[in-house]
Amino acid sequence: MAGSGFGTIFRINTWGESHGKGIGVVIDGCPAGIPLSEEDIQSWLDRRRPGQNRYTTARAESDAVEILSGTFEGRTTGTPISLLVRNQDQRSRDYGNIAELYRPGHADYTFDRKYGFRDYRGGGRSSGRETIGRVAAGAVAGRLLAELGVSVRAYVSAIGPVSIDRAKMDFDFIEQSPVRMPDPAASAAAESYLSECMRELDSSGGVIECIASGVPAGLGEPVFEKLDANLAKALMSIGAVKAVEIGDGTAVSRSKGSENNDCCAVGENGVPYKASNHSGGILGGISDGSPILLRVSFKPTPSIAQPQQMLDRSGNCREAVIHGRHDPVIVPRAVVVVEAMTALTLADHLLLAAASRIDFLKKIYSSH
Amino acid sequence: MAGSGFGTIFRINTWGESHGKGIGVVIDGCPAGIPLSEEDIQSWLDRRRPGQNRYTTARAESDAVEILSGTFEGRTTGTPISLLVRNQDQRSRDYGNIAELYRPGHADYTFDRKYGFRDYRGGGRSSGRETIGRVAAGAVAGRLLAELGVSVRAYVSAIGPVSIDRAKMDFDFIEQSPVRMPDPAASAAAESYLSECMRELDSSGGVIECIASGVPAGLGEPVFEKLDANLAKALMSIGAVKAVEIGDGTAVSRSKGSENNDCCAVGENGVPYKASNHSGGILGGISDGSPILLRVSFKPTPSIAQPQQMLDRSGNCREAVIHGRHDPVIVPRAVVVVEAMTALTLADHLLLAAASRIDFLKKIYSSH
Amino acid sequence: MAGSGFGTIFRINTWGESHGKGIGVVIDGCPAGIPLSEEDIQSWLDRRRPGQNRYTTARAESDAVEILSGTFEGRTTGTPISLLVRNQDQRSRDYGNIAELYRPGHADYTFDRKYGFRDYRGGGRSSGRETIGRVAAGAVAGRLLAELGVSVRAYVSAIGPVSIDRAKMDFDFIEQSPVRMPDPAASAAAESYLSECMRELDSSGGVIECIASGVPAGLGEPVFEKLDANLAKALMSIGAVKAVEIGDGTAVSRSKGSENNDCCAVGENGVPYKASNHSGGILGGISDGSPILLRVSFKPTPSIAQPQQMLDRSGNCREAVIHGRHDPVIVPRAVVVVEAMTALTLADHLLLAAASRIDFLKKIYSSH
Amino acid sequence: MAGSGFGTIFRINTWGESHGKGIGVVIDGCPAGIPLSEEDIQSWLDRRRPGQNRYTTARAESDAVEILSGTFEGRTTGTPISLLVRNQDQRSRDYGNIAELYRPGHADYTFDRKYGFRDYRGGGRSSGRETIGRVAAGAVAGRLLAELGVSVRAYVSAIGPVSIDRAKMDFDFIEQSPVRMPDPAASAAAESYLSECMRELDSSGGVIECIASGVPAGLGEPVFEKLDANLAKALMSIGAVKAVEIGDGTAVSRSKGSENNDCCAVGENGVPYKASNHSGGILGGISDGSPILLRVSFKPTPSIAQPQQMLDRSGNCREAVIHGRHDPVIVPRAVVVVEAMTALTLADHLLLAAASRIDFLKKIYSSH
Repeated sequence: MAGSGFGTIFRINTWGESHGKGIGVVIDGCPAGIPLSEEDIQSWLDRRRPGQNRYTTARAESDAVEILSGTFEGRTTGTPISLLVRNQDQRSRDYGNIAELYRPGHADYTFDRKYGFRDYRGGGRSSGRETIGRVAAGAVAGRLLAELGVSVRAYVSAIGPVSIDRAKMDFDFIEQSPVRMPDPAASAAAESYLSECMRELDSSGGVIECIASGVPAGLGEPVFEKLDANLAKALMSIGAVKAVEIGDGTAVSRSKGSENNDCCAVGENGVPYKASNHSGGILGGISDGSPILLRVSFKPTPSIAQPQQMLDRSGNCREAVIHGRHDPVIVPRAVVVVEAMTALTLADHLLLAAASRIDFLKKIYSSH
Repeated sequence: MAGSGFGTIFRINTWGESHGKGIGVVIDGCPAGIPLSEEDIQSWLDRRRPGQNRYTTARAESDAVEILSGTFEGRTTGTPISLLVRNQDQRSRDYGNIAELYRPGHADYTFDRKYGFRDYRGGGRSSGRETIGRVAAGAVAGRLLAELGVSVRAYVSAIGPVSIDRAKMDFDFIEQSPVRMPDPAASAAAESYLSECMRELDSSGGVIECIASGVPAGLGEPVFEKLDANLAKALMSIGAVKAVEIGDGTAVSRSKGSENNDCCAVGENGVPYKASNHSGGILGGISDGSPILLRVSFKPTPSIAQPQQMLDRSGNCREAVIHGRHDPVIVPRAVVVVEAMTALTLADHLLLAAASRIDFLKKIYSSH
Repeated sequence: MAGSGFGTIFRINTWGESHGKGIGVVIDGCPAGIPLSEEDIQSWLDRRRPGQNRYTTARAESDAVEILSGTFEGRTTGTPISLLVRNQDQRSRDYGNIAELYRPGHADYTFDRKYGFRDYRGGGRSSGRETIGRVAAGAVAGRLLAELGVSVRAYVSAIGPVSIDRAKMDFDFIEQSPVRMPDPAASAAAESYLSECMRELDSSGGVIECIASGVPAGLGEPVFEKLDANLAKALMSIGAVKAVEIGDGTAVSRSKGSENNDCCAVGENGVPYKASNHSGGILGGISDGSPILLRVSFKPTPSIAQPQQMLDRSGNCREAVIHGRHDPVIVPRAVVVVEAMTALTLADHLLLAAASRIDFLKKIYSSH
Repeated sequence: MAGSGFGTIFRINTWGESHGKGIGVVIDGCPAGIPLSEEDIQSWLDRRRPGQNRYTTARAESDAVEILSGTFEGRTTGTPISLLVRNQDQRSRDYGNIAELYRPGHADYTFDRKYGFRDYRGGGRSSGRETIGRVAAGAVAGRLLAELGVSVRAYVSAIGPVSIDRAKMDFDFIEQSPVRMPDPAASAAAESYLSECMRELDSSGGVIECIASGVPAGLGEPVFEKLDANLAKALMSIGAVKAVEIGDGTAVSRSKGSENNDCCAVGENGVPYKASNHSGGILGGISDGSPILLRVSFKPTPSIAQPQQMLDRSGNCREAVIHGRHDPVIVPRAVVVVEAMTALTLADHLLLAAASRIDFLKKIYSSH
């Protein structure tokens, strides 16, 4: 089944494995007339590529993107946009001893059960490099959002037991932090924790939060194509994600109605405003015009150099060690992936909601 | 946009509002040959209808389902199955004073922004009765799962601050508990808590867990149509849901790789088994053959009789009270809804995975 | 596989068999704010029901439609619209002798091969009554089209060897003609031909043409979701259709470029106009603003009372006679079905095209 | 709207313009385990590329295809297959004088109305080179069909007034004929006719027929996703197509039931067989196991060097001449495109039908 497509009207199709010739994406349904250049996309890709700091693996890739179709004189044409990033560093030898093993926490076993063979080449379609297609497409969605005043920003809010202090958040610090936390103190504490993990040949999980601003009210198509339902699917589809929360998330279960309801209040100028945002900007599956708040929990990178009991292809359970390049943490590199999936979902819903009301359609067709 | 459809091959389309003539669903793509009767569906619906205990509203509905098409001599024909439940008790007068108000925590405001009008009749498509279509369809999916040895069971694991004791879980107690908790002590404590909420004219949130057993390995279509991504969308689409977790869920962020990886161990009989299930039965978005573990967090019912500040249609923020029938908690009635959405997702993926490998197709077409 | 759904944004799902409890459709994605009543739909249904003249079977059905959801105070709400028509006259006894036979030209054999059983009850989902759902939905699409100035009209252009004279077409005559031809002389000749067929216990094929007017330029989504490609699918899906043509249709194969190209000419007022319409209003799969011209060829009704060699369930080929109610021709009743499928396709594309250009989206969201 | 995707489970997404960097396709949902090499695909592409004979334009392209992902050790992996063909010869100067003109019969005007700009570079996405993606994907579908014993063959049955003699068809002659007709006499006559057209600076239309053999009974998903409906959409989506016919096609309208019904007869060996195939292998939208017969009518190539009245961007109608490379006929090069679209549709339906019956699913999951 065609599982590598995402979206309804603004639809992307990704392809490519970490050890194939390249990775790419085709974006279909992007409206015509949006300014788009390779630089717009490269800036997003640069925030995911390896080798940025000592906590990410030193694979030497420039990940330069090439636009093969879909633009003319610097603007989108409305035809499919094909983006390609060539693979360069594919050190096969790093993975030699795992050809016969199913690594714990990886998709080796499940892919074999599904497709009937074991592609041992470094994770194939389930590796982190698969996210290149998502991020490149997310950049294009980001340009569409920008045209309509919508923006998306994500950051790491926790690594292991270390959390940011919400009273001291500084968004300008995100790109300076090696772990992309908007809090210098927490960033330093997280770095210490990660150094400890690396010494122990272990890895850590983490949490990424994402805020979407400027989202018009009315996006989302009940009852199944709700905005939050689609965001949940988009974010859960990112590798290593095990939980998706909207607004207060899991905390709502311990809350009372009098605490959780977002009521209004009147400002000094007499204008009413939304006094809280426990709902995270979405009610009944539809955006209400306030910021959308998302939280995504990532498990620790499964590749650790400690000895582990693992299943082999003959069905035996034995101890082995996974050699190769191991990140102790995923989340700093996944921040741009979370932004991309959020941008892609919002782009699609901006286009879908255009057909909700007959007065919208009359507005378009009267002057056409 | 057509937002009331769910699924790809096994696809359902729900319709109906709480104050219209009825509620229903059309199930398209159910394979032929599955035994199906009204009783099969009624047993699921009975577990959601109101009036079961003092914690659910006393709306007098029998919610009898009628199969209008799609079966012949007691088995599915492969043609669309149309199910209908007529609305009987629609006390419009209960909602009179809210016609001009946007109730906090409800979708009143967002529906108005999206569609351009205010349907004040008790929540319309965003009310709890909308779940009738989901549950009826879930019962049909459940019959398909049964044919292939798959089962789904959900229960309430927490209400407010009261959680079950996992060491003392008794699944046989679920239907005896007025709050559907599989732990008599926790059930009693939760009832006390809810009585307190009712005295305060308030409501409580809760958590539902769901276990799917007998799921074959290999379900899920990477990278976007992963099984966990689709389960997240299905569950997040249920009204009042604010978080979806798989396996250890949010706890994975505080975990280390050495703790989180599910490794193998060898049993007394020398047969290897999966020694833990932190992943919740899904790796790389594909089922691995072990039980699938899901957790869904529900916010408190927004309708409470306490005075609240709310926006009215003229744009003013003023205090008002919502009269009418108010459940202090949603989760006991939502248990069967969680089972339904899980069953629907698994049914679709069982059908989708049939096309993954050329040897499967040869098996079908060689003898056809 | 869910095969009873049609459309992307404006999506319908039909259900029901000729010998089940009823027939219906759920329309999902219809924009809010469109006036809609049962009368709007009944007028379309009345043009298909049996018993209108001596050339259609005398099944006694009133086919009264009921709107079960999706409207409020006379306008669409944007939520799913469920329509139901109860079956009344189901004379099972008419079909008794065919339970063991596969009638030639019918779907009996193919349905059995596909689903594994023989539903002998008068054609089931492949009978003419299945079109009730299409036509009811087409009426709703027609109201949407009306809001945007688009209209659709079809008529019978040929029955057997009898064709209309295009120089003498009178659209006002269509509903007066028992065979829905816009030409009194041809209508009379066709009636004679049909009487002859009935005497011979035989049936006739025919052709329906359809003109869509007021269609804005720009509808259609290349390269696969072209407007003509979707119209072809919509029309070919009608039972008994064996050919779909756009504009000059099959005649283009014998034409030269100098003859077939639609060039411009200048009118007396100096305004250029399209001098011909060989293309039928669509170029490159996109509407050009001129009338869309469609032609649909129907095979003769397969049920004839003449003895025929037919296969039985044991695999033998033997002579038998099909008793029951036999129309000598389908096309007069299929005219409204062709209009319905055309309207449904255009409605969907009007909504899809709204997302083609960033300036359309800015127009919607700037004032929202 | 994403219009460049085709298929449900076996889904392709094409991209690229004639004057961009390249043309390609991503195939998603191809089952794992099918042998696939660049040679398999190149053989299909070679049958469409220009420069094969004097009736096709002399654009110098090798159209070498590159498989960028989706295979491992010579077999499909079940992950997306990305195919790329680089553009080489793009003589922009050939199209210089048309930047301000809307060429008659081309999509220039309609694309401008839809997307808001005029991409004059030789037809862009509506040019013949767009078919490269379709044909490459069709080759992959062809390999899947081969694994299940299904084959597809097309040929030119008419060019202008010249038709083949069905009593003398020789399929082995197809690739020897410069116009791909399976009849040497008709082929020679057609060549004369085309030489005459070229002298007149004109072009000709034609007809392509396609036969699919070995198709199992039971493919097609009523009532809207019927096999013939999807074939009609697939074929009508090919540029320049104006009619699609199944079996006897338009001739059925002049036929009687006693003539058109396909009845059985008993062979010498006592085994019943289908005595005719007026239905073209499809009844009730489902394949019946006999050969599927399709017929596709193509209009003449619109680009002719004769002077024509055409609209310019300022809205004036004036005479102009289109310089550049003009094929006098499309159909010889479109034969492989028709095969490709037919193969793609059948591949998708083979996968869809796998989920029709519960016994099929039990067969797959019992041994998994």
